[in-house]
Amino acid sequence: MGEMLGQERRTHMAGLVNESLIGQEIVVTGWVSKRRNLGSLIFCDLRDREGILQVVFREEASKEAYEKADRLRNEYCILVRGTVEKREAVNTAMPTGQVELIAKELKILSESETPPIYIKENLDAAENIRLKYRYLDLRRPDMQRIMKIRSKAYITVRNFMDQEGFLEVETPILTKSTPEGARDYLVPSRNYPGSFYALPQSPQLFKQLLMVSGFDKYFQIAKCFRDEDLRANRQPEFTQIDIEMSFIGVEDIIDLNERLIQKVFKDILDYSVVTPFQRITYKEAMEKYGSDKPDLRFGMEIRDLSDLVSGTEFVVFKSALEASGSVRAINLTGGAAMGRKDIDRLGEFVKTYRAKGLAYIQLKEDGVKTALSKFLSEEEIAAIIQRMDAKTGDLILIVADKNEVVLQSLGALRLDLAKKTGILEGNKEFRFAWVTEFPLLEWDDEAKRFVALHHPFTSPMEEDLDLLETDPGRVRAKAYDMVLNGEELGGGSIRIHDTKLQQKMFSLLGFSEEEAWARFGFLLEAFKFGPPPHGGLAFGMDRLVMFLAGTDNIKDVIAFPKNQNAFDPMTEAPDKVEDNQLRDLGIGISIKE
Amino acid sequence: MGEMLGQERRTHMAGLVNESLIGQEIVVTGWVSKRRNLGSLIFCDLRDREGILQVVFREEASKEAYEKADRLRNEYCILVRGTVEKREAVNTAMPTGQVELIAKELKILSESETPPIYIKENLDAAENIRLKYRYLDLRRPDMQRIMKIRSKAYITVRNFMDQEGFLEVETPILTKSTPEGARDYLVPSRNYPGSFYALPQSPQLFKQLLMVSGFDKYFQIAKCFRDEDLRANRQPEFTQIDIEMSFIGVEDIIDLNERLIQKVFKDILDYSVVTPFQRITYKEAMEKYGSDKPDLRFGMEIRDLSDLVSGTEFVVFKSALEASGSVRAINLTGGAAMGRKDIDRLGEFVKTYRAKGLAYIQLKEDGVKTALSKFLSEEEIAAIIQRMDAKTGDLILIVADKNEVVLQSLGALRLDLAKKTGILEGNKEFRFAWVTEFPLLEWDDEAKRFVALHHPFTSPMEEDLDLLETDPGRVRAKAYDMVLNGEELGGGSIRIHDTKLQQKMFSLLGFSEEEAWARFGFLLEAFKFGPPPHGGLAFGMDRLVMFLAGTDNIKDVIAFPKNQNAFDPMTEAPDKVEDNQLRDLGIGISIKE
Repeated sequence: MGEMLGQERRTHMAGLVNESLIGQEIVVTGWVSKRRNLGSLIFCDLRDREGILQVVFREEASKEAYEKADRLRNEYCILVRGTVEKREAVNTAMPTGQVELIAKELKILSESETPPIYIKENLDAAENIRLKYRYLDLRRPDMQRIMKIRSKAYITVRNFMDQEGFLEVETPILTKSTPEGARDYLVPSRNYPGSFYALPQSPQLFKQLLMVSGFDKYFQIAKCFRDEDLRANRQPEFTQIDIEMSFIGVEDIIDLNERLIQKVFKDILDYSVVTPFQRITYKEAMEKYGSDKPDLRFGMEIRDLSDLVSGTEFVVFKSALEASGSVRAINLTGGAAMGRKDIDRLGEFVKTYRAKGLAYIQLKEDGVKTALSKFLSEEEIAAIIQRMDAKTGDLILIVADKNEVVLQSLGALRLDLAKKTGILEGNKEFRFAWVTEFPLLEWDDEAKRFVALHHPFTSPMEEDLDLLETDPGRVRAKAYDMVLNGEELGGGSIRIHDTKLQQKMFSLLGFSEEEAWARFGFLLEAFKFGPPPHGGLAFGMDRLVMFLAGTDNIKDVIAFPKNQNAFDPMTEAPDKVEDNQLRDLGIGISIKE
Repeated sequence: MGEMLGQERRTHMAGLVNESLIGQEIVVTGWVSKRRNLGSLIFCDLRDREGILQVVFREEASKEAYEKADRLRNEYCILVRGTVEKREAVNTAMPTGQVELIAKELKILSESETPPIYIKENLDAAENIRLKYRYLDLRRPDMQRIMKIRSKAYITVRNFMDQEGFLEVETPILTKSTPEGARDYLVPSRNYPGSFYALPQSPQLFKQLLMVSGFDKYFQIAKCFRDEDLRANRQPEFTQIDIEMSFIGVEDIIDLNERLIQKVFKDILDYSVVTPFQRITYKEAMEKYGSDKPDLRFGMEIRDLSDLVSGTEFVVFKSALEASGSVRAINLTGGAAMGRKDIDRLGEFVKTYRAKGLAYIQLKEDGVKTALSKFLSEEEIAAIIQRMDAKTGDLILIVADKNEVVLQSLGALRLDLAKKTGILEGNKEFRFAWVTEFPLLEWDDEAKRFVALHHPFTSPMEEDLDLLETDPGRVRAKAYDMVLNGEELGGGSIRIHDTKLQQKMFSLLGFSEEEAWARFGFLLEAFKFGPPPHGGLAFGMDRLVMFLAGTDNIKDVIAFPKNQNAFDPMTEAPDKVEDNQLRDLGIGISIKE
């Protein structure tokens, strides 16, 4: 057992000690992060939440402390009383590098075995080890930095929302299945055997009900749950900044959230976000970037060549055009030098997006090279080059197919080439945009019915209301996504607040009236009592912190995440439970099919 | 379908319109809360989050609006553009009572059926109807006021903690069973059929691990879950303000939390809480008030009469004393006038606390009346009267039994009499206290073993460490409860941070070493790596808001609570789920025993 703290108290954080304290006696606490015994001197780096301070044990200063210091090992937890002195060998790499602490008293509060991972920046250790010993992993300075950023993000968001007149309201965790498309986590009920609560995929319905209640402006930093097959950067539980407002339109929500983002990036990173954000319709985003979350930090836009090659007999182009598809291309600046093999690899890459292949035109110093010259006239090729704004040294990459395939494969190729050619290297820009005018519905080929692109509560655009009857697939939604550097950061919409329109929407989605009432009856019922026009937005808090912290791993921004299999190697959850617990709940374990 | 909002926007909150706006044209939105048609004038009370504004529709101001206003019914959602005018018949009961709005334009944004509950203060409606139509219940001004208080409490607490250097860290909701004594809610896992997550009863273990990680000061406003049999003021999910600190002792935690409470009560109620809070040991609280959460707003303390009646032959007293019990009493000032029947009822009351009966001494104007005079001498009775500081007009109520029964029954009787006699009526005091020096362990007669009075991670007091081996039941803990007006508001402790001591504790609680490692291995493991001394506290957020809002019903402070049976009449959760959902999870429904 370690020494007792007793009445002794820390007076300063070790990582914040500086020259202003020279000559003063202080008490610091923390962990031994390095120790060097030079015989007459023992140096020890003491680490706390704020940083590292060099502590010096000298026999002249305190024989007792000096002798005890010989026992110190890495990660011992200690308390040191001593005097701050100017350091001879200044270390400019450390904020405390001008000073050192001459120890007069040492308490070993607890000892440490050799830690199974290094407590250092940029650790390269297996993920499961990091997660099993998460409490040690979190001691590492980069994890401490991230958790501080996350904490600051919470308070910044909350104070902003509070000042804007939003009320924070907690919505239930034990609730009823909501229809966000993913699987629900279920919670068996002891009072109603055979019945289950569901953990919320989002507070969507509750925040709409709060608007019906007249709270006017609601926000919450809410835990959400999805029992999906996990992919990189997905976690079974995640956090979202959830916002809803009444008596507003799209512009009000956009304005509020641009100012929120500006505040967060300014306060946390001292970065000035430019507002208003660029806006781009879903249609334009798909056609120019092949993505509904375009990375706008670079060009390389997709352009349509269909009109230029409409007369061709080249079977690949011809059959695509005849099937209402298109021929489109991107221009890789400076790409003409790329060798045959590398271009072939790009061809393989687009095939993973169901494209049949990649045609290309190389604009070499010694002239234009392309296999297309067998099928296209010189004028046609010249027109393509002009359409693509290509110059000598460039490489035009062409896909012909159904529109969906052309856009997806070229969009993916664009991002892949940006990565490979490093055009974003050193780019520290945060490029925000709003993607607007999303389709309300999307045809699901398998289910043979429409599904909601956002969710079933999204309002159609007024100008498209008539199309609901005649051509639902063309109806645009009052929906908007906030996009940052090619990632979706948030999404929202103006909601339906009319029972009839909401029922119409459910019927388009293939719910019978009965089914709709069984699942969402409480919302339809609520809409009978003077619901206000309302809308809102939800941000991925985890993703926001990833951007703020500069990490691309969601596990880095969550204190205690699960691994890829939704398992926690530290607590070993999920785990077996006692038979009587299951008996109480009226459930049993069956064999999985 | 209602009229569209279009480009029209609210310029002011209806409930905040005042004389400074006279002559201005404004736009307000909200709900019709009352309507009177006086022929040439239509009056309408418009309600929004901030209050009520009188709107006047006159044909001269706008024929169209006037005619449309005839259609208005209660709870229609509307937008009104108009001019603020000084009101002739000033209504001093309303903050907006000096003015009215002369309508120039009216939009009916949505209509309302007749609501199933009245939208008014102090509604007296059946709870299940209120919960089923919670979105309407929440429209009521008192519920709006409470949710605003709750929202303000969140931000006040968070800003205070932030300024004190605490980091907000989210801990997992899908986790492993923790041993707080209550039943866990379980969540079946699809990836590991037959295994379950548990919803946390508190973030206890995670916050201790965050201290091992060196975060130094942690807080969170955390959702917690207990699948207990519900009683009044219990909910299956509840919220707690969760705090943990390193390198500190009891005094540091007490100081921090007194300042936190002071800040919250000042900012929200403009009430000045007196600090430091009174402190009282567990032993003193039990002996004086028969409760570990004493209501200190009034006296009526329990006093021990055992020494005064030690020689008596009165069998009730004698047998109690012989069985190491005691004879104790409270004095009800002015109670001598109480009739025989009422006193008999008090006797029945204490029997529900297992007391065998109630002896009493009436100090009437015409002398002392008591059946005890058959058994006790005049001197003995005089000594009792003196001990109780009783005066003419008072009533001394005496219980003799095992100490536990005596204290519990007199403690409950004391509270009951306070309620009945109304001595707290009109008392607006918030009387805080700390109860300290709790026993570490409590003997469980049924289980024939010790259980932790707080939780198994609570540190013993240093002066009692030796007793762990010799007399564990007498060991006091470094634990402290914050008590307010007879309710427990929060509780905490200094934690064990030593593997060996923690294991000793588990063994006292009857866990084998194997069991302890199976359940808490990750904590014991973490303690091998330099854990800091640490401790903390958790407040019931719901109960805090109940005090701030002046309600004694926990359902009033939760936006969407469950009813007594852990059921939500609005969403009808919990509910049946699809068979394939259960199949995916590898569970089946069995018949409950």
